Amino acid sequence: MKKTVTFLPDNVTIEVDTGENLLSAAAKAGLYIQASCGGDGVCGKCKVKIEQGEVAANKAMQLKAEEHAEGFRLACQSSVIEDLVVSIPVATSKDGKALKAKPKTTRAISARSLDHLIGTWQVAPPVEKRFLTLEPPTLEDNVPDLQRLMRAIKKKCHDCAEPTYDHPELLMELPFTLREANWQVTAIMLRGKRAEEPDRIIAVEPGDTTGNLYGLAVDIGTTTVCGVLIDLNSGEVIAEASAYNDQISCGEDVISRIIYSQRPGGLKALQEKVVRTINAVIETVCKKVMISPSDISYIMAAGNTIMSHLLLGLNPKYLRESPYVPACSHFPLTRAASLGIHAHPSVRLFLYPAVASYVGGDIISGVHACQMYKSPELTLFIDIGTNGEIVVGNEEWMVCAACSAGPAFEGGGIRHGMRANAGAIENFHIHPETLEPMIITIDRIKPCGICGSGLIAIVAELLEAGVIDQQGKFNRSLDHPRIRQGIDGYEYVLAWSKDTLMGEDIAITEVDLDNLTRAKGAMYAGYVTLLESVGMTFDDLDRVIMAGNFGAYIDLEQAICIGLLPDIDRDKFYYLGNASMLGCQISLTDHVRFRERMMVSSLITNLELSESSQFMNHYMASLFLPHTDMALFPTVREKLPR
Amino acid sequence: MKKTVTFLPDNVTIEVDTGENLLSAAAKAGLYIQASCGGDGVCGKCKVKIEQGEVAANKAMQLKAEEHAEGFRLACQSSVIEDLVVSIPVATSKDGKALKAKPKTTRAISARSLDHLIGTWQVAPPVEKRFLTLEPPTLEDNVPDLQRLMRAIKKKCHDCAEPTYDHPELLMELPFTLREANWQVTAIMLRGKRAEEPDRIIAVEPGDTTGNLYGLAVDIGTTTVCGVLIDLNSGEVIAEASAYNDQISCGEDVISRIIYSQRPGGLKALQEKVVRTINAVIETVCKKVMISPSDISYIMAAGNTIMSHLLLGLNPKYLRESPYVPACSHFPLTRAASLGIHAHPSVRLFLYPAVASYVGGDIISGVHACQMYKSPELTLFIDIGTNGEIVVGNEEWMVCAACSAGPAFEGGGIRHGMRANAGAIENFHIHPETLEPMIITIDRIKPCGICGSGLIAIVAELLEAGVIDQQGKFNRSLDHPRIRQGIDGYEYVLAWSKDTLMGEDIAITEVDLDNLTRAKGAMYAGYVTLLESVGMTFDDLDRVIMAGNFGAYIDLEQAICIGLLPDIDRDKFYYLGNASMLGCQISLTDHVRFRERMMVSSLITNLELSESSQFMNHYMASLFLPHTDMALFPTVREKLPR
Repeated sequence: MKKTVTFLPDNVTIEVDTGENLLSAAAKAGLYIQASCGGDGVCGKCKVKIEQGEVAANKAMQLKAEEHAEGFRLACQSSVIEDLVVSIPVATSKDGKALKAKPKTTRAISARSLDHLIGTWQVAPPVEKRFLTLEPPTLEDNVPDLQRLMRAIKKKCHDCAEPTYDHPELLMELPFTLREANWQVTAIMLRGKRAEEPDRIIAVEPGDTTGNLYGLAVDIGTTTVCGVLIDLNSGEVIAEASAYNDQISCGEDVISRIIYSQRPGGLKALQEKVVRTINAVIETVCKKVMISPSDISYIMAAGNTIMSHLLLGLNPKYLRESPYVPACSHFPLTRAASLGIHAHPSVRLFLYPAVASYVGGDIISGVHACQMYKSPELTLFIDIGTNGEIVVGNEEWMVCAACSAGPAFEGGGIRHGMRANAGAIENFHIHPETLEPMIITIDRIKPCGICGSGLIAIVAELLEAGVIDQQGKFNRSLDHPRIRQGIDGYEYVLAWSKDTLMGEDIAITEVDLDNLTRAKGAMYAGYVTLLESVGMTFDDLDRVIMAGNFGAYIDLEQAICIGLLPDIDRDKFYYLGNASMLGCQISLTDHVRFRERMMVSSLITNLELSESSQFMNHYMASLFLPHTDMALFPTVREKLPR
Repeated sequence: MKKTVTFLPDNVTIEVDTGENLLSAAAKAGLYIQASCGGDGVCGKCKVKIEQGEVAANKAMQLKAEEHAEGFRLACQSSVIEDLVVSIPVATSKDGKALKAKPKTTRAISARSLDHLIGTWQVAPPVEKRFLTLEPPTLEDNVPDLQRLMRAIKKKCHDCAEPTYDHPELLMELPFTLREANWQVTAIMLRGKRAEEPDRIIAVEPGDTTGNLYGLAVDIGTTTVCGVLIDLNSGEVIAEASAYNDQISCGEDVISRIIYSQRPGGLKALQEKVVRTINAVIETVCKKVMISPSDISYIMAAGNTIMSHLLLGLNPKYLRESPYVPACSHFPLTRAASLGIHAHPSVRLFLYPAVASYVGGDIISGVHACQMYKSPELTLFIDIGTNGEIVVGNEEWMVCAACSAGPAFEGGGIRHGMRANAGAIENFHIHPETLEPMIITIDRIKPCGICGSGLIAIVAELLEAGVIDQQGKFNRSLDHPRIRQGIDGYEYVLAWSKDTLMGEDIAITEVDLDNLTRAKGAMYAGYVTLLESVGMTFDDLDRVIMAGNFGAYIDLEQAICIGLLPDIDRDKFYYLGNASMLGCQISLTDHVRFRERMMVSSLITNLELSESSQFMNHYMASLFLPHTDMALFPTVREKLPR
């Protein structure tokens, strides 16, 4: 349910979900409210007055009884439950002058319907069950059991090619299954991966079990493995679960996993760890709906190229060494049980194909989901992360590239950087005059660090406020208690020790700024190099599709402000969420969509950026906030201080 | 080298191989020489006089010096080394009257060229090696290793479909093999089983190994497993070996094997035993030519339906129970190593498809070899044995049936019956007046029993001599020391105890005669029923093709005389030898011929005789020597005593 909140005195109205936190709502509306404890309710600075409507508010020690009676509340302790009008008190300078922070243009990527991107799909999964009544054999008709089964299948589908079948398991049990079931059985059939391939009988069950047909979509991330259980008779998602990839104990990123894999027994250990993680996810989703893992009939998975190699037990050694060659890119359809996954021996695991060592199946799954290969519109598909992946193209051609952005977006190389967990500063505004911060943390507890989206917000706000310059250096002429020289050089204190979880100051440093600039520079240089390789510019783009969790939390204006995203029409941006998982879900439900994946692979061409001089030139030009060529960022040029 | 031997006084000339035994040669020429010790040289009765030429003869105690000087030799101790003229002394009756046994019409099936039957084949095996030089990867061309391999294969064959490949083995090793071999490798490719199937990469070896390509043809008999090793570059047979099927310890025939398989662990034990036998054969052939079992790249095998089930570990329970349903008839292409066969993990084992529980892959392989499915001529294909198999048809249709003849042809149910081993009586003549026997044993040692071909010869000769009548009963009116009443009723003593290996009389009894009559009756009833099922008679037959070892030793006239084979133009009979092995060899060498096997399966229809009343009627009519309807045996009617 959506509610509207109008903030006074600026008269800015925003639409939010019921239950939205009022401090977050103000931040999203681009408004500044002083708040230094992240939303924990301890600093008591984020007082607002509810003019119309009611909020659900925790009792706050920091409010006097008369303030409460007058309608004052702590924004960070209030949830929106109905339409509101809220006054934000105007701060005053030491000399009593009203200090009003003008509302900022701010924009999450429009939460619009993605139907026209991802299209529709039918419930016609690649695996299906067929109930069959066989004629019992007689002396006149004593064809073999398998042939009798085939005949019954054929009877239901005259035009179908003769199915293939799993051996030896199927044949060993078939004579007994048929007779015990009195010739009434359910065949589990796998449709050909391509239209021209025959179907395959993977199991035969006694009686009619067509009512139970389940599939699992799995996104195998370097950090997290997510699973979605789908009832393949209805197409409905019936359970979800995720777990940290057990491989994390062998290294945080793909490179350290490759290094680990070269140790004696390392490859095997990594394979076992990811399999154990997948098994945990399977167990969780199955428990939720009270089915057995052996009831799952198909697993559709996607992961980056390294994750895919490790899952299959393929040595990723040469993925790390120039010229970065994978063992294969179209991974064989594998029996899940042969990898150690707790599944019926007949169950197949499909892994989305990769394009290159650093453009993997997760990206292909995303491209597959958003159907950019079917549209005439020129699309830029991006997944921002330690390894940023970029695809540009349309129905006629696609090029892709990976750029090593480094771990800044995940909190790596940032002094107080952290993953997007509770206590991470995820949003930030600065008062343009007082230069005091408004910080909002995940789960609104006291801050303990900065996550990627927070980092982007902080840098954009510091830049717009003139606290840092376009080279990411602090304005030495500012005299402010929060701006100081620390052990890493100049820094801005986001939260004083008394307001933080671990009791020490949280600051952003010039080293942090440098690392973030490199990260966003690599992404931007990737876009430009890729577009240039096909003789195009940002002007030619019809759409920018962001995939990955990261895109959910970043503010479009802030991301453009620092040069992470191109400064083009905001309406061209789409956020697709976990596109990799989405692709798996669609493929698991609709075999026709699944078969179309071959188009993705055939259209896409990889460009190796790592040693490209064009890329290096664009990268150097991008090591500026937002860019050395400000003509590329007209709206940012407008709002930056001269 | 062929030599001619002319026997006097009958002036019968026969062509024999150099080294042929003179007693055997006389028997094959239809001539009688008294011989009661089987050829051991101890009875000294088979004296002949060498009129022209020389024989290689062992020194015989039984010949006096003057006899030797006159040119007398013991026929059984003499080998033909040049063209000969030989006089056979004429026996005399007690009263001095010359007793001359007229030469008999006798005929092995013509040893003519089989080329027009089995046709020609090219050396283009289903498995092939391709030497490939890959371009090393660069940053501009860093497609995955597998794709690079595929590209190199494609370069050599533009029109070929994308090959499939074995996983996970191939992918796990590929990156290392390619680099260690400096991008020069040999791919072992399996051609699609059907023309429309893509080729499959089953292994990649460093360097150029195309010079070494070997295949194994295996005939998996209930009793014997034979292997033939073929150099697939030249198509030449380079080694052969055979071994008794280890399963014999679990039962002599297929029925007892099925019974054994139903014991706990029985199926597994039987599988292991046949695999052990195959491994022994592989080891033997490989040792002969100093290659390793892992150098064999393909195994083409054929066996009856029970042997095929047991090799694959499929339970044969329902093959024995009416309505006799196999688990499957088209056996899956299997990795030999997965069955426990000592072979490279990539090596496939192809098992010829079966038609029914008792018409198996060995028959299909034989039909495949003789190409009866490609000829307009109506052909009767038969394999005589405990389970006799019969196929009738031409290029347009084929019907087949099995008839349970019982073990008489293999010596079972015959008092002195034995397998065709040393000491078995394999040929027999009787003097029409003295009724004295001429017996010839395998390896010409003292007799110890009777094998199938000997049994047929004995019954035919006794019938022609009027010692037994057409019901298989001894002529009670004959007064002869060899004809007597024994514990099983009347019998004829073939060898007196002093002349036998185990020191007891060897005789043929009325019970034996009854068993043989049933066996041949079942076969004959099978031919008639099958022909009748398609509205035909023996007159319509253009060819009779005999397969199996048995056919090599039986005399056509004798077999017709007892009613085992139809009484038709002798020139229509062909003997194909181990047709099952021949089919395997052809398929192993020529993938085009191999692919044609699908035609065999599609044309052939099985008829279940076991409970057919037509069959039972024909069977009852056949329980006579040669048959109750003598119009069916005109040449036999001519020569039998009135």
